[in-house]
Amino acid sequence: MSVTAPAGFEAAGVAVGLKSTGKPDVAVVVNRGPLKVGAAVFTSNRAKANPILWSEQAITDGVVEAIVLNSGGANCFTGAFGFQTTHQTAEKAAELLGVSAGDVLICSTGLIGTGDDAFRAKVLAGTEQGIAELSADGGEAASLAIMTTDSRPKRSVVARDGWSLGGMAKGAGMLAPGLATMLVVITTDAVLDAAQADAALRSATGRTFDRLDSDGCMSTNDQVTLLVSGASGIAPDPDEFAAALAEVSADLAKQLQGDAEGASHDITIEVRGAASEEDAVEVGRAVARNNLFKAAIFGNDPNWGRVLAAIGTTAAAFDPYDVDVWMNGVRVCTKGGPDAPREAVDLTPRATDLVIDLNVGDQTATILTNDLTHEYVHENSAYSS
Amino acid sequence: MSVTAPAGFEAAGVAVGLKSTGKPDVAVVVNRGPLKVGAAVFTSNRAKANPILWSEQAITDGVVEAIVLNSGGANCFTGAFGFQTTHQTAEKAAELLGVSAGDVLICSTGLIGTGDDAFRAKVLAGTEQGIAELSADGGEAASLAIMTTDSRPKRSVVARDGWSLGGMAKGAGMLAPGLATMLVVITTDAVLDAAQADAALRSATGRTFDRLDSDGCMSTNDQVTLLVSGASGIAPDPDEFAAALAEVSADLAKQLQGDAEGASHDITIEVRGAASEEDAVEVGRAVARNNLFKAAIFGNDPNWGRVLAAIGTTAAAFDPYDVDVWMNGVRVCTKGGPDAPREAVDLTPRATDLVIDLNVGDQTATILTNDLTHEYVHENSAYSS
Repeated sequence: MSVTAPAGFEAAGVAVGLKSTGKPDVAVVVNRGPLKVGAAVFTSNRAKANPILWSEQAITDGVVEAIVLNSGGANCFTGAFGFQTTHQTAEKAAELLGVSAGDVLICSTGLIGTGDDAFRAKVLAGTEQGIAELSADGGEAASLAIMTTDSRPKRSVVARDGWSLGGMAKGAGMLAPGLATMLVVITTDAVLDAAQADAALRSATGRTFDRLDSDGCMSTNDQVTLLVSGASGIAPDPDEFAAALAEVSADLAKQLQGDAEGASHDITIEVRGAASEEDAVEVGRAVARNNLFKAAIFGNDPNWGRVLAAIGTTAAAFDPYDVDVWMNGVRVCTKGGPDAPREAVDLTPRATDLVIDLNVGDQTATILTNDLTHEYVHENSAYSS
Repeated sequence: MSVTAPAGFEAAGVAVGLKSTGKPDVAVVVNRGPLKVGAAVFTSNRAKANPILWSEQAITDGVVEAIVLNSGGANCFTGAFGFQTTHQTAEKAAELLGVSAGDVLICSTGLIGTGDDAFRAKVLAGTEQGIAELSADGGEAASLAIMTTDSRPKRSVVARDGWSLGGMAKGAGMLAPGLATMLVVITTDAVLDAAQADAALRSATGRTFDRLDSDGCMSTNDQVTLLVSGASGIAPDPDEFAAALAEVSADLAKQLQGDAEGASHDITIEVRGAASEEDAVEVGRAVARNNLFKAAIFGNDPNWGRVLAAIGTTAAAFDPYDVDVWMNGVRVCTKGGPDAPREAVDLTPRATDLVIDLNVGDQTATILTNDLTHEYVHENSAYSS
């Protein structure tokens, strides 16, 4: 069900030939209200795709009626023509739905630098067809239409007492930075105003999607959108809502990690004993982006020296000779020196747990990443994406 | 000849079983003077190997009599025992050479976190054997003994009017950051004082080794050392010396790039039109560290969208929609939009030229990197290093 699980939403996913495979490639999600509240966070990449440039403006009033998403083309670095394509897509949706174009968000994903007349015609046709096929159980179809290199759709639903959240995601990476573009739409029938929605969304993404760092590459098209219908009539406690939104977000982030391009290990990097949460994030991210460490994990090699070499590049507060490291529960490094022999560590499971204790404070953070594999290189070299 | 090309130097390379292959693994270079001037730059990684901790102290007076280098073990994160091994190595060399231990530099390269009694005994034996075999044509043997994953030794000689420079290097990466450890020793018989040597070395490394960014991973053991014998009796113009040192450094850096682990393309990233040289370096480095771009080059795919996505993550001054990009001489992107079709670009040669014009100023910088290949993943996952 994904985005149509909560009351007040309709969705559709259609195929219009943007994908050479003929699979679904345009998704539409419409908020039937009564509230039309929206919030969104965007890639922090300065090289922003046209849909990002559009949606950043459209979201400023906190009102969102609908969102149109296409795969099969990122519409990024396609010049004025590309921006007009995004604009026309919003206008087409607005006209058919009887709403303002400024309340329609647009997301695109696919190859950068392409977006010709044929692309525009297909996106517009998909918008029209998608709106014609809108239904209250269209969430599953929508989640399929946003897939690119994804091997499976990502969906999540969290139900509370009388209200719920539903989400869909695509991508094999993260919000910022991102492996492939990450697009996420989360809906709820809880009652929230725009400020509440924005705060809850930023809090949830900051600790979930933002901490998924599959390959350190930031997309031009990442967008996470929260749509609020208020159809349940229930205004939950803000903390309770934030927790539920974080739960959906974490679930979708885990699904993205588990489907990262070419990965053979899902690596959870838990940094403990940091002086600040920022330090913990910096240390975890440095490890997540270290190709030598990631290749070692692919080779089932508990090479903790590469962990220390990676964190030594950060400005975080710690003494390299006071750091402890565990891999899959085995303490391989104590105070910057060897502990258990590497033979004691079993890295054959896909789930890999790395724990780094900086021993300077009590702050923690967890970063999710993947290993660097032959298949990753293959998927990102054998064809354009 | 490498380090023994200039007058006043002797060197040796011996095999003592640090490498399981039985190949040479300990090198010694001795400065016979009359000057005993030295300068060195070290990895900026906070996780420093024991030889770095030692050499950083030993170089402070600008006097260097000798340098002992071993492959087959990085002696990093090996605790107090490892530091004592480094210390004992310097004392052993000093005793045999009749000099002060504080004037002997040490370099090590190999696996992090290993360095037991057997390692120490072999390094000490190699030091003794190397000093016994010192000769004025030992530069070639020394250059072989510092190799690890290198497929070939790296040597360079630049001769000027009556004085010369000779160098050797190992590693498939850079000073900071580095792919594998980079160790470089450059000798000269020109007459310089310690301050001149230090200034010239920092200038040369800053624009050569520091701009070789093969995989963004910084080593714990990188060291570039300049030894000055003054045996020519000639004190060159400082600018002329700096230019010659930069020439040797650039030559060795190019050789390191050309032998990077698993690489199939040597990529030269030239950033033009930057507001500052720092901006140009930041932009070039962001591209050099982008796995998606590097994998695309491996696949001979002129995916300029990944270039723009990479530079969009920097804080450099530019407008993404005013950037031009050339690949192997073909202008593929003009003002952030598509230009020549990708079919026009031939990426099959190993040498790959990427030019990025930011169109905001007149500063430039060139960063050297490599592509991300199956072989890179294999070499860094199939065994520990």
